[in-house]
Amino acid sequence: MKIGIVGLGLIGGSLGWDLREMGHKILGISRSEPNCQRAIELGVVDDASTQLNILAEAEVIFICTPLAALAPTICSLIPHLSPNAILTDVGSVKTPVVKAVAPLWHNFVGGHPMAGKAESGLEAACPNLFVGAPYVTTPVETTPQEAVNIVEEIARSLGANLISCSPEDHDRAVAWISHLPVMVSTGLIGSCISEPDATILKLAQQLASSGFRDTSRVGGGNPELGVMMARYNRSELLRSLHQYRHCLDRIILLIEQENWQELEQLIMLNQQARPEFIPESC
Amino acid sequence: MKIGIVGLGLIGGSLGWDLREMGHKILGISRSEPNCQRAIELGVVDDASTQLNILAEAEVIFICTPLAALAPTICSLIPHLSPNAILTDVGSVKTPVVKAVAPLWHNFVGGHPMAGKAESGLEAACPNLFVGAPYVTTPVETTPQEAVNIVEEIARSLGANLISCSPEDHDRAVAWISHLPVMVSTGLIGSCISEPDATILKLAQQLASSGFRDTSRVGGGNPELGVMMARYNRSELLRSLHQYRHCLDRIILLIEQENWQELEQLIMLNQQARPEFIPESC
Repeated sequence: MKIGIVGLGLIGGSLGWDLREMGHKILGISRSEPNCQRAIELGVVDDASTQLNILAEAEVIFICTPLAALAPTICSLIPHLSPNAILTDVGSVKTPVVKAVAPLWHNFVGGHPMAGKAESGLEAACPNLFVGAPYVTTPVETTPQEAVNIVEEIARSLGANLISCSPEDHDRAVAWISHLPVMVSTGLIGSCISEPDATILKLAQQLASSGFRDTSRVGGGNPELGVMMARYNRSELLRSLHQYRHCLDRIILLIEQENWQELEQLIMLNQQARPEFIPESC
Repeated sequence: MKIGIVGLGLIGGSLGWDLREMGHKILGISRSEPNCQRAIELGVVDDASTQLNILAEAEVIFICTPLAALAPTICSLIPHLSPNAILTDVGSVKTPVVKAVAPLWHNFVGGHPMAGKAESGLEAACPNLFVGAPYVTTPVETTPQEAVNIVEEIARSLGANLISCSPEDHDRAVAWISHLPVMVSTGLIGSCISEPDATILKLAQQLASSGFRDTSRVGGGNPELGVMMARYNRSELLRSLHQYRHCLDRIILLIEQENWQELEQLIMLNQQARPEFIPESC
């Protein structure tokens, strides 16, 4: 199959890596000529260009740009596409993407491979990034079943676990387990550094260990990505944040009231609930 | 040196492991006879008993019981001690411990080795648990310098990084980096499971990956330990929680106002601040 990849970063590069290995012909697009050359050198594409017209014969095209660039990229891409080409994206928010793109191109399937690592960019690309990771597709009523089947077949060939749901359900679920943790975690760092006594702050920095490290990890990540989540999934994230504040207020109240029994009960329920969220492999 | 260890769990057992390896004679106390036998089998003590009088000749005694048992344990222990015996503890909160114990026994040095692992109990004990970990001592005005020197020398021999501060500074610092993260993290789990739509909750469980796993880890831990932190470090934890809520409210406001520039600025400051808290080895 001739597969196009627009945006040669961590996700685009890793997709190219695995799909080319399987024998597909991979055509890459990047805004940067040196990045195109590097992708060819790394062997993650057969050919790469800054010019969209190299995708004229592509059968399936993965749009792997940042969310903000997605709709404009697809607008520029459309004049170059073969009429039966299937478009799919890898954006971490689905409702605004599907709403913007579905009217522009019939054969569009919203997608979200939930794989990643701390590093970003083409140099971070690697084989087997998607193995065992959830790969969500978010077809809507107007999405042709054949296009869905082909995208899902490719996702399955990457070793990912396919999950299908509506764009709205996807966004509500990821608000809880992906976007809320970022805000909760960045707030933790922000409050610690607000300590006005320099001696205490220094001591806190010296004493911080794995508990602080893990709880603050996603909050210490890429600020652009954090803003993008908030921007594109604003209403769902706000809903989660308000509910989170409610839970936090409950914890504060129990500690103020020295209601240790209910606090223990609350933590115990959370302890028991956590394994339902954590894949056994983690 | 003859060293007593009261409480043969993860910390007490691991202390015995390393100190016995160095040639000290280790005398262990546990409330459970089978646990005493197991400690002897594992080789973490030379002798162990449920009877406190085996510590009559101990020169230094580590109290490794849970916080709530600390002061009563020391009261029962005092009649059996040699008059020059040095007592030290490993509790994760220091102000109430030092206040309770210093009047009971002159030669007492508050201590907190900040090492741990997910598992607890004697079976989790292991060699070199304290290597590279902070070991805080919290001497007060009345603490004899010689007692401090001896406890610090032992801590140093374990490979730990010694830090000395007042009990109050310790408790304020650990509220930020150890106790606040537990509450922040358990609140995250609690809010996720409050999702009323079962389909969304199921989807969230399927899609949760490393971000949720790390942010929720300490909140999904031992409920008794969480309550103990809140109970013994209540005022400092509340101070941190109120400040955290203030930071969270700021984040919510920025998202409500769609003030993406300031949100990015805020996340960026936190991203830049985080490495100051994270040891290079992490």
